[in-house]
Amino acid sequence: MAQAFKGKPVADVIREQVGQDVEAWKTKGHAPKMAVLLVEGDPASFHYAQAKGKAAEKLGIDYELHTFPPDVTEAELLATIGQLNDDRTVHGIMLELPLPKHIDTKKATAAIAPFKDVDGLTPHNLLATVNGSAGLYPATPQACIALLKHYGHTLAGKHVVLVGRGETVGLPLIHLLLRENATVTVCHSRTPDIGAHIRQADIAFVAVGRKNLVTPDMVHPNLLLIDAGINETEDGGIVGDVAPEVIDHVAGMSPTPGGVGSVTTALLFSNLMQAMALQSHNSQEVELNGHV
Amino acid sequence: MAQAFKGKPVADVIREQVGQDVEAWKTKGHAPKMAVLLVEGDPASFHYAQAKGKAAEKLGIDYELHTFPPDVTEAELLATIGQLNDDRTVHGIMLELPLPKHIDTKKATAAIAPFKDVDGLTPHNLLATVNGSAGLYPATPQACIALLKHYGHTLAGKHVVLVGRGETVGLPLIHLLLRENATVTVCHSRTPDIGAHIRQADIAFVAVGRKNLVTPDMVHPNLLLIDAGINETEDGGIVGDVAPEVIDHVAGMSPTPGGVGSVTTALLFSNLMQAMALQSHNSQEVELNGHV
Repeated sequence: MAQAFKGKPVADVIREQVGQDVEAWKTKGHAPKMAVLLVEGDPASFHYAQAKGKAAEKLGIDYELHTFPPDVTEAELLATIGQLNDDRTVHGIMLELPLPKHIDTKKATAAIAPFKDVDGLTPHNLLATVNGSAGLYPATPQACIALLKHYGHTLAGKHVVLVGRGETVGLPLIHLLLRENATVTVCHSRTPDIGAHIRQADIAFVAVGRKNLVTPDMVHPNLLLIDAGINETEDGGIVGDVAPEVIDHVAGMSPTPGGVGSVTTALLFSNLMQAMALQSHNSQEVELNGHV
Repeated sequence: MAQAFKGKPVADVIREQVGQDVEAWKTKGHAPKMAVLLVEGDPASFHYAQAKGKAAEKLGIDYELHTFPPDVTEAELLATIGQLNDDRTVHGIMLELPLPKHIDTKKATAAIAPFKDVDGLTPHNLLATVNGSAGLYPATPQACIALLKHYGHTLAGKHVVLVGRGETVGLPLIHLLLRENATVTVCHSRTPDIGAHIRQADIAFVAVGRKNLVTPDMVHPNLLLIDAGINETEDGGIVGDVAPEVIDHVAGMSPTPGGVGSVTTALLFSNLMQAMALQSHNSQEVELNGHV
């Protein structure tokens, strides 16, 4: 019977730690605050923004939702981002994606102050993920690793196959895995036989966004498998990139839903705590520089 | 008999193109100029700086050598970099490494204007290498790929094993190879059995800096092998990371010396041409913005 890498226990541990950190910041007179920018029109985004608000409330984190009509101009959106960047009572800024087509998503995300960018989407934070410098790493790649470790597995010296090279999950994950000292094979749409690679791996991470991408014939009984894919089914449900029956053919696997996703949400708040530490450190540096 | 991927014919083709580009720029009234900063004290650096000067001269490129005494302060060095950044007649800036220990190498390289950084060492250019945005990519990883392609080999859909994850060669090479649509396995010092991976690859790139790292038992007769390692021997010679006798056990291999190195040097000047194009494009944008 395969080990199911359920997300909830991992998310619980992370939230426990965040809750303690929130209290510590409040004791020091800094109430953690997250701002979410939502352009109306996408029902899923509205749902996500609401869910984050509830999660923040439970953790004692102030939550500020800025909604915009679907025809908001890029300039208006950028102006609000600029105000939130400058507002020292706001510690995290999240921009719900997708944005309407008339807004340049790359420009809008890049406008977020790197140390408030809890989604880890700015160029500064992509670079930080790559070279390990100070910054905020995207939550999903972090969640993949946290999930595996929570269930007692290690990465150093292991052969990991990563399926997917997208900028938000696969690409940052390459570097997080290398810094864990894993040997990493990156497969993608142009890999002729992905199964041939997975069958030789100790661990596989899948982050493509295509259901049934990994099937039982592509795995082996000792494999540990983390599924970071999210795909909607016709009846409005959520499935991963890995066919559900694969769990009977591996040593351990994360379910979808109930796996990576809930850990990702918890880690957004963990990133908010990291953001506060970076901002605090930064402002101390600024103050020091002011005295030189 | 293995194919020897000699660098000279590849470098000749690159230099031919650079020579044409230099003439084209001169016709437009822009004489390409490269500035090299050398802190005295390291004999190898002195040698490299001189070699670049000769190579530049042959290509009709102006070459400006700035030498500093070993006790130059960081502030003095940074001041010269700042002047060269602002000097519109200088198109490329190279800082000979290593620097003396009292100078922060990371800070000094990061001070170079990204579009003049022909070595591709600034954070901006590392990020460009990672996400494919406009910038100057480091020459050695580019040379590895150019060498292989010159001899008629392709990367799309191939399984490539990369040995080494350093910030100057291995790490950028991961992303250049992924953009060529290769499936990439990254091995390093913590990989338990590097040979097991290379024996399954179509192509291997080695960039570690340890002689005899790859031995005949680690390869197979159909392998194509590019050796980007540079190691000094006790008698002052240069050897790669791959034991020379490996060439009798593979389908193709780059010799060291005579392989990647000469292509790298030629590509520095190719990067200077790219730098001029980026600066020209940039200044046009500035001018356009000035008219808005």
